[in-house]
Amino acid sequence: MLSEKVLAMTRQKSIIREIFEYGMERAKVVGPENVFDFSIGNPSVPAPQSVDDAIYEIMKELDPVERHGYAPNAGIPAVRETIAQSLNKRFDMEYTADNIFMTNGAAASLGILFQLLQNDENDQIITFAPYFPEYQAYAVSAGIHLEVIPADVTSFQINFEVLKEKLNEHTKAILINSPNNPSGVVYSKETIQKLATLLEEKQKEYGHPIYIISDEPYREIVYDGFEISYVPHFYDNTFVCYSYSKSLSLPGERIGYIAYSNKIADADIILGALVQSARLLSYVCVPSMFQRIVAKCVDDTADISIYAKNKELFYHALIDMGYECVEPGGAFYLFPKALGGDATAFCERAKKYDLLLVPSDSFGCPGHVRISYCVDPKRIERALPLFKKLIDEYKGEN
Amino acid sequence: MLSEKVLAMTRQKSIIREIFEYGMERAKVVGPENVFDFSIGNPSVPAPQSVDDAIYEIMKELDPVERHGYAPNAGIPAVRETIAQSLNKRFDMEYTADNIFMTNGAAASLGILFQLLQNDENDQIITFAPYFPEYQAYAVSAGIHLEVIPADVTSFQINFEVLKEKLNEHTKAILINSPNNPSGVVYSKETIQKLATLLEEKQKEYGHPIYIISDEPYREIVYDGFEISYVPHFYDNTFVCYSYSKSLSLPGERIGYIAYSNKIADADIILGALVQSARLLSYVCVPSMFQRIVAKCVDDTADISIYAKNKELFYHALIDMGYECVEPGGAFYLFPKALGGDATAFCERAKKYDLLLVPSDSFGCPGHVRISYCVDPKRIERALPLFKKLIDEYKGEN
Repeated sequence: MLSEKVLAMTRQKSIIREIFEYGMERAKVVGPENVFDFSIGNPSVPAPQSVDDAIYEIMKELDPVERHGYAPNAGIPAVRETIAQSLNKRFDMEYTADNIFMTNGAAASLGILFQLLQNDENDQIITFAPYFPEYQAYAVSAGIHLEVIPADVTSFQINFEVLKEKLNEHTKAILINSPNNPSGVVYSKETIQKLATLLEEKQKEYGHPIYIISDEPYREIVYDGFEISYVPHFYDNTFVCYSYSKSLSLPGERIGYIAYSNKIADADIILGALVQSARLLSYVCVPSMFQRIVAKCVDDTADISIYAKNKELFYHALIDMGYECVEPGGAFYLFPKALGGDATAFCERAKKYDLLLVPSDSFGCPGHVRISYCVDPKRIERALPLFKKLIDEYKGEN
Repeated sequence: MLSEKVLAMTRQKSIIREIFEYGMERAKVVGPENVFDFSIGNPSVPAPQSVDDAIYEIMKELDPVERHGYAPNAGIPAVRETIAQSLNKRFDMEYTADNIFMTNGAAASLGILFQLLQNDENDQIITFAPYFPEYQAYAVSAGIHLEVIPADVTSFQINFEVLKEKLNEHTKAILINSPNNPSGVVYSKETIQKLATLLEEKQKEYGHPIYIISDEPYREIVYDGFEISYVPHFYDNTFVCYSYSKSLSLPGERIGYIAYSNKIADADIILGALVQSARLLSYVCVPSMFQRIVAKCVDDTADISIYAKNKELFYHALIDMGYECVEPGGAFYLFPKALGGDATAFCERAKKYDLLLVPSDSFGCPGHVRISYCVDPKRIERALPLFKKLIDEYKGEN
């Protein structure tokens, strides 16, 4: 009687949950300080003081009816205007409140856009491995095909040869995620420029828009020597999906937005269409109080410098040991090659040293592991000798 | 290029929005104190002091990483356990945390259940006019047919004759909403008992469960002389959809739950299936901080006594004037017959007196108007002479 689509999802094993449960059990045996769980991608730094300040201010400034009342579907106009002005300052855009649609975080932004773009059973959205597995759930829900382009594992930039083969008249959007979960890689300016040029050509050829959906929850976590291009500078038909989960360390509060310039195709109907698309997913409004909180902290971030320190420590140490890994430009993930080639077998062997890593298969890119380093640096320091033992074990066999 | 399903929704006129905009314009002409907008169904009483207290407590008790961190998909276990225990006390149930699935309010609960129950293009959910129009959006999204049973306008209890005709092997659920938006009517114990008995029969006949989805955001707003039955006492296959929007006056924070007893069909897989169904709709978790807030206020409500006072004043005054209206047992709506029979024409004429009412057509029950009395009692007192003039105008014509 229950939905087969839903039941099929319940039967899929969640690798990350299994690792988490294994870690809990193992901690009982060897002590939690001796289990090195690098599987979870949750921000480990607290929200900035400005979030606390904003909460106390709002408690004083607004009576409860206004503070906790319904917000308009698209978000509180003053909040949207504040975000627009902040983006204008940072990225030299000409946004107003009408260019900002508040959402319950990046997941909701993507769910809403997938719904908005699905029209025909042949419709497809193209994304690039390695990719966040939840993209598949949004595609299933919207009834749109998610076409995954295999990774260029030497750089994790876009594999344009395969992209050109897969682009067709049914392509509604290209979904990019830079800095990337799980690789941490940032798309270069050249990659974005090349993608924009290709899509401009293809839009003309097919006679309809092909949108870029830029999934940017890790935008603020970017390292020295890397730069994250603002995609709307390169391509008008861009939806920017942003989340405050990582930038303000508010993942549980579910606050983000979709931004689009007035140069986007069908600009005059996009806002109304997003409202209706969100209604279909049963969204009523984005939590009122936290909309106002993020507006008060709009130019602030949590102390994300810790992620850069962790990356410097962890990345160079692994490279020095002999692991192969493309240097992450942002986010808080390393994505080295699995020793021996089989990610699951490698993760099993890493468990012997109580190193908990995520095999890459569910990210659509076999032969790698994801290492989340949103942890206390001391844990990394204590784990490094174990990574050394692990690689030595593999070397000893050759 | 955009979804035709979504675009069709953008082309539908929103009656309530039009009334709201008319009211704003009219207020510029005659002054806001002279426009009597009874169209909006937003709680007008503040959240109780215990909500403020809970916010301050949580700010002190929890560090920001825990306070704003991801919650499990189904909700924070301690919050779910607290709600379960509160329900056990009130309704003599045997709930544990596993019987409570936290949601982003009643809309999300319904969206998630519609997804969960859809399996076949012939599947249907039956509901009863007058009904909340958003039900149609959730049905469209899930691809399930919403069959609407016409109202018994003499009582607004269930029209069982028509229900029996429409029940068939494709019926997955019966969706009830008591106290009702827009009628304010509460289903009697006899109605619930009769519905349960009928569905027990039909479950046997068809050989599969037929769920009751009990949409109960107005449960706490019930008036002397009326009683709201707890549906799981009558029928095991019940999903109770609750929201704190009205009880704690937190409509903008989007917090509610789905509750189900261990006697529900497929009890052992329901929780996992709800998690997956929510994932399909791109829900990640229910806002963390407000989950903890409602847990701290679980046995509290806003001062909803004002709604009872408004109802006493408004209902009896209209009846005394000669309006025909079934007495509401709860919520904050009156649903009188439109004078002259045509709801839209009646609402237009009411505008002459600056009375803004919602014609009933979008609730699937023509010939009535919805009057929301979640307003300051003084506004009702000042509006009553205008309702008198309005009915006198109609009487003068006969």
